[in-house]
Amino acid sequence: MRKSNLLIAFIGLAYGLTAQDTDRKINFPDVEGYKSLKCDLHIHTVFSDGSVWPNIRVEEAVRDGLDAIALTEHIEYQPHKDDIPHPDRNRSYHLALEAAKPHDLLVIHGTEITRSMPPGHANALFVKDVNAIKKEDAMDAYKAARAQGAYIFWNHPDWIRQQKDALPVLSDFHKQLIANDLLHGIEVVNDLSMSEAALQLAVDHNLTAMGTSDIHGLVDYEFEVANGGHRPICLVFAKEKTEEAIKEALFAGRTVAWFRQTLLGKKENMKALLDACLKTKIKGYEGDTSILEIELRNNSDAAFILENTSVYDFRQHGKIIEVEPQSKILIQVVTARGNIDTQPLTFKVLNAIINHKEFAEISIDLK
Amino acid sequence: MRKSNLLIAFIGLAYGLTAQDTDRKINFPDVEGYKSLKCDLHIHTVFSDGSVWPNIRVEEAVRDGLDAIALTEHIEYQPHKDDIPHPDRNRSYHLALEAAKPHDLLVIHGTEITRSMPPGHANALFVKDVNAIKKEDAMDAYKAARAQGAYIFWNHPDWIRQQKDALPVLSDFHKQLIANDLLHGIEVVNDLSMSEAALQLAVDHNLTAMGTSDIHGLVDYEFEVANGGHRPICLVFAKEKTEEAIKEALFAGRTVAWFRQTLLGKKENMKALLDACLKTKIKGYEGDTSILEIELRNNSDAAFILENTSVYDFRQHGKIIEVEPQSKILIQVVTARGNIDTQPLTFKVLNAIINHKEFAEISIDLK
Amino acid sequence: MRKSNLLIAFIGLAYGLTAQDTDRKINFPDVEGYKSLKCDLHIHTVFSDGSVWPNIRVEEAVRDGLDAIALTEHIEYQPHKDDIPHPDRNRSYHLALEAAKPHDLLVIHGTEITRSMPPGHANALFVKDVNAIKKEDAMDAYKAARAQGAYIFWNHPDWIRQQKDALPVLSDFHKQLIANDLLHGIEVVNDLSMSEAALQLAVDHNLTAMGTSDIHGLVDYEFEVANGGHRPICLVFAKEKTEEAIKEALFAGRTVAWFRQTLLGKKENMKALLDACLKTKIKGYEGDTSILEIELRNNSDAAFILENTSVYDFRQHGKIIEVEPQSKILIQVVTARGNIDTQPLTFKVLNAIINHKEFAEISIDLK
Amino acid sequence: MRKSNLLIAFIGLAYGLTAQDTDRKINFPDVEGYKSLKCDLHIHTVFSDGSVWPNIRVEEAVRDGLDAIALTEHIEYQPHKDDIPHPDRNRSYHLALEAAKPHDLLVIHGTEITRSMPPGHANALFVKDVNAIKKEDAMDAYKAARAQGAYIFWNHPDWIRQQKDALPVLSDFHKQLIANDLLHGIEVVNDLSMSEAALQLAVDHNLTAMGTSDIHGLVDYEFEVANGGHRPICLVFAKEKTEEAIKEALFAGRTVAWFRQTLLGKKENMKALLDACLKTKIKGYEGDTSILEIELRNNSDAAFILENTSVYDFRQHGKIIEVEPQSKILIQVVTARGNIDTQPLTFKVLNAIINHKEFAEISIDLK
Repeated sequence: MRKSNLLIAFIGLAYGLTAQDTDRKINFPDVEGYKSLKCDLHIHTVFSDGSVWPNIRVEEAVRDGLDAIALTEHIEYQPHKDDIPHPDRNRSYHLALEAAKPHDLLVIHGTEITRSMPPGHANALFVKDVNAIKKEDAMDAYKAARAQGAYIFWNHPDWIRQQKDALPVLSDFHKQLIANDLLHGIEVVNDLSMSEAALQLAVDHNLTAMGTSDIHGLVDYEFEVANGGHRPICLVFAKEKTEEAIKEALFAGRTVAWFRQTLLGKKENMKALLDACLKTKIKGYEGDTSILEIELRNNSDAAFILENTSVYDFRQHGKIIEVEPQSKILIQVVTARGNIDTQPLTFKVLNAIINHKEFAEISIDLK
Repeated sequence: MRKSNLLIAFIGLAYGLTAQDTDRKINFPDVEGYKSLKCDLHIHTVFSDGSVWPNIRVEEAVRDGLDAIALTEHIEYQPHKDDIPHPDRNRSYHLALEAAKPHDLLVIHGTEITRSMPPGHANALFVKDVNAIKKEDAMDAYKAARAQGAYIFWNHPDWIRQQKDALPVLSDFHKQLIANDLLHGIEVVNDLSMSEAALQLAVDHNLTAMGTSDIHGLVDYEFEVANGGHRPICLVFAKEKTEEAIKEALFAGRTVAWFRQTLLGKKENMKALLDACLKTKIKGYEGDTSILEIELRNNSDAAFILENTSVYDFRQHGKIIEVEPQSKILIQVVTARGNIDTQPLTFKVLNAIINHKEFAEISIDLK
Repeated sequence: MRKSNLLIAFIGLAYGLTAQDTDRKINFPDVEGYKSLKCDLHIHTVFSDGSVWPNIRVEEAVRDGLDAIALTEHIEYQPHKDDIPHPDRNRSYHLALEAAKPHDLLVIHGTEITRSMPPGHANALFVKDVNAIKKEDAMDAYKAARAQGAYIFWNHPDWIRQQKDALPVLSDFHKQLIANDLLHGIEVVNDLSMSEAALQLAVDHNLTAMGTSDIHGLVDYEFEVANGGHRPICLVFAKEKTEEAIKEALFAGRTVAWFRQTLLGKKENMKALLDACLKTKIKGYEGDTSILEIELRNNSDAAFILENTSVYDFRQHGKIIEVEPQSKILIQVVTARGNIDTQPLTFKVLNAIINHKEFAEISIDLK
Repeated sequence: MRKSNLLIAFIGLAYGLTAQDTDRKINFPDVEGYKSLKCDLHIHTVFSDGSVWPNIRVEEAVRDGLDAIALTEHIEYQPHKDDIPHPDRNRSYHLALEAAKPHDLLVIHGTEITRSMPPGHANALFVKDVNAIKKEDAMDAYKAARAQGAYIFWNHPDWIRQQKDALPVLSDFHKQLIANDLLHGIEVVNDLSMSEAALQLAVDHNLTAMGTSDIHGLVDYEFEVANGGHRPICLVFAKEKTEEAIKEALFAGRTVAWFRQTLLGKKENMKALLDACLKTKIKGYEGDTSILEIELRNNSDAAFILENTSVYDFRQHGKIIEVEPQSKILIQVVTARGNIDTQPLTFKVLNAIINHKEFAEISIDLK
């Protein structure tokens, strides 16, 4: 019997365990050799220019099923300073850490070094004392963060308030940062926008591709969670679910960003993710015909848009096959169009971007 | 992650096994000592005045998860006779039997004796040869059916085309039928209407309470299945899922009819059904207060509307508690309003009608 | 063509104007002579023990379509004091007022006088300076609020942390408050619970019945908004949408509280609301029968559960008729059961509570 | 306030006018110079090997919002002949015509000439007397149909029961038919499959591209209507909504077939349809940036999958933009990637197939 949303609501209301609680949790399968940790590493609270107390950030993250978050308050921008004059810039981290205790959520100590362009804004993660990073000179701030062992990434390099054409430019300052081991990553996704140009910088300059919410208000409102939306996250492929392992993975560049229906990441990381998400089963020929049936299962919360680049036609699909989250579809392949011994089924994954206007590809052996 | 209906549709479309297939199936738990068989025993096809071939009736029933159906073509009303002149009135039964072979669906041989009032229309079930029931005289038709061992019930006694005030009247003819073991049941639910007055006749004259779809067109359209509606059914409490057991149960009067949100049946049958559908668990006092938490679980596809008739107040509900299909709710009882040792929690089940303006009651011991 | 939720999400995501934005707004029709203002007059922020900045409270209220809110920070309870040492207890009011400027939302200046029982907690609204209400002695605090012209109501009199049996007791202190014009209202609904006993106190002692969210975290999480839930509100029947008119209405006692599926209020207010929400149209007799068709339209966001207390039966419903929010239903009345000239159709509105175990009634003339 | 599906169901149940009634209706805008008529011109009933009476085909079509249907009973295949021995093969047409009288639905007289391959099956429409088309010799049957003025199209040329590799082959027999004006169209969509190879034949041999349901059972079950699916239809671009105008349009080849998420049709027809379905509005630059906002509105029930083939990047989308049915989206164009004076925004419409592995394209001037 069909259950209405209303019904689910009533169940939820009675128990405090809601459809939202279970349904909104983000799921991605682990990849070969690594856990796929769901991270949002760029977040604000009332302790800089955000609008909620740190405990709300923990609750949002728990509801989203995240593995790790970082509160990254602006060092230099404190609009609530008159109300919250707390001199210790580590304060929101400690409050979040406390709030996260009952949950299986890692809270990573971070902060946002907030400057005009160049170098613009950057997040430093895995820091020990934010107060020590407050420096007059921008370069000094990066150095102070790095002295604490920080992993540092460039925030929204395409931010139209700092870059009117939304095409990020690697300044001499940035090049110097990279050369001096002071910049390790770059946001390819931030809040409500993505940047293929930023991904190209990540590829060209060996920076880790980051995706973050940069949330200031409520995650549910900003990203329309009630309507099926999700916050941008960074999938970090780490050896285990620990802060140390995340740090190692970030320095090693093992990430994919998830933005709305699009995944952005470097080729090898995207390949690992697609291998984990999309599973194929050859079901056999339909009766005595030469139509071969292939089952394609998507184990993830991302939808995939596949463009058939092979010689074959399909009986129930045109060029495009969409595989919805957590679902499977059946593809009926007109094998007479080619030679299955030598010509595999190949797809371009149109929502898996691996560089500016470049896409991941998958191949399914039909033998 | 939330799945949209669209998504469910795509999964379904790819596999031919749809959300509808699984979600529309009607579920009621077995009652103490008996199976709860879901039956629709009043159905038409093109072989009288219906609009579909018998195989469609089987497909609809399978999708609804029914245990048994009966095609009950009018003997005396054959509007498609010019197109379908088949002289054998058993024909639709045989076609349905054939169509049902791959499924776990019982097809009961039946027919509709179709007269003006009195006696109006009646269905004869478990017949052997419908042709032999075609008689000039109405009483002879009932006798011929009964001679084949038939269970016979009065159809839509409140039918406004035959009874303008919708209040069924037991004519002398009907009394004679009952006296002569020629009438055993009465529809309290037919198609889009129900009749508490008919239920009263069932109670007063020891007739079995029947609920049927009397479908002529498509079940999905008539009962808005796509919008969460369901066809009216008769729950038959039988020793096993066989034709013989259903026959025994119908003669013994063990039924409850399900119409939209309302259940109609005799007191003892309704009690057995409610005992099976609604399960209570006492969860204990909330902290050091005198608020007692009770979990109420509904194992059925019927919603229940409970009116609190006890001395107690609730913390999260008013007088009415609705327990949605296949769900559970938590009731917070203000026990200080009474004495839990002597005063149980009592409810009138407002959608479980056991006679004209009478309702089933349930009692939950709080000790 | 059916639109999926997913689709609605995409539209929303593209425009920042979401299904949630439009669908969650609470709607109740104006009553005879007054506007039905949707108010939540018990709310916390980080400026006492809440978890959000005041702007979030404004955003939540705007999304809920509220007409007025009051931030009511605890005077005596300031767990964030170390972080937010701001000495001015009017601060959150001023921030909310600023945030509300672009919106058609009234922000009422209020505060919560927070004591152990008796008298427990109370909200003072329409105050001028909260700092002046901070007094050692409880009675002095009430007097100081009243001296500013405050309307004062008793919060959660059934709060199990202060009243273990959840049955509110009017202490001598409270009687003294009432006698001295220092207490004017009482919460019958607070957060996740309601109290018929509190409503009885409101009726017996001429206190205004209040319903509030008492929200500390997020409205969307606490009240499952994504699943169709809503925050408790107080409908205030005011001459116009101004602070003054709300004040007049509250002192005059013109309110109804809305909690989940239940409305609680005094008889005359509930009658006015039901008259506005439920509209009847007699459609005429069905063909040449005595079945009379009545259309019942519900213009509100509350569902109504009607118990038929008349002599009549219905053809498509049992004793209970549920009228879903913003919908209409057709009732087929078996008029032969009575005399339509002298016997109207009467219903008890089972989710409209007007006193302890008492319910509103409606009557529909069938002539 | 959010309305649940359950609620919609209740409203529907009470009034017989359901969400399904209104939501499932298929909508496409008229194209330049022509009405876009929604037609299903390949349908069976009990009068050949279907399972429903003709009135059900009318009801399904009315619910789907179709403009025209044709019942196309097999001349040579009559499995229900023993039950329905009616000698007049025009019978189902006349019954459908009668059933359609209260509705704005055209019923076109047709039949299916049913042979083994070659030539396989073909539908003849706009016939006058099906009996006269019953001929021993296949060619004679085509000639007899044509003698009545029939428009004739090849059914499921890729049918795997007759063509095991699903790749249609134009036999000498077919070539002769075409040469002799005895074959005018070809199904590129039939029931649950589509064929790009068939579309190529349509293009190469100037045949009209047809899409039909070929329904035998129930439309709702076969095409999962309750889950958002739809029957395949043929959009016929006709001067007016008359049988004559449809005939003219079919002979003139003005059609597009709609199958699941895919449209198939010849280039010029597809262009006309896309021009009508997708409307662009340039909203202007975002602030003082070079980001240009374009609104894209989809006025149809088809979803569109657009592949960005221009030089530009987007701020909120990757290479693929999906425009859901009856919705609009906002595209943020990074104009700095090109020259808007000379380089328009261009898309390949990946679900609008105009030949084997060829797709429609659209261009949006950014000046």
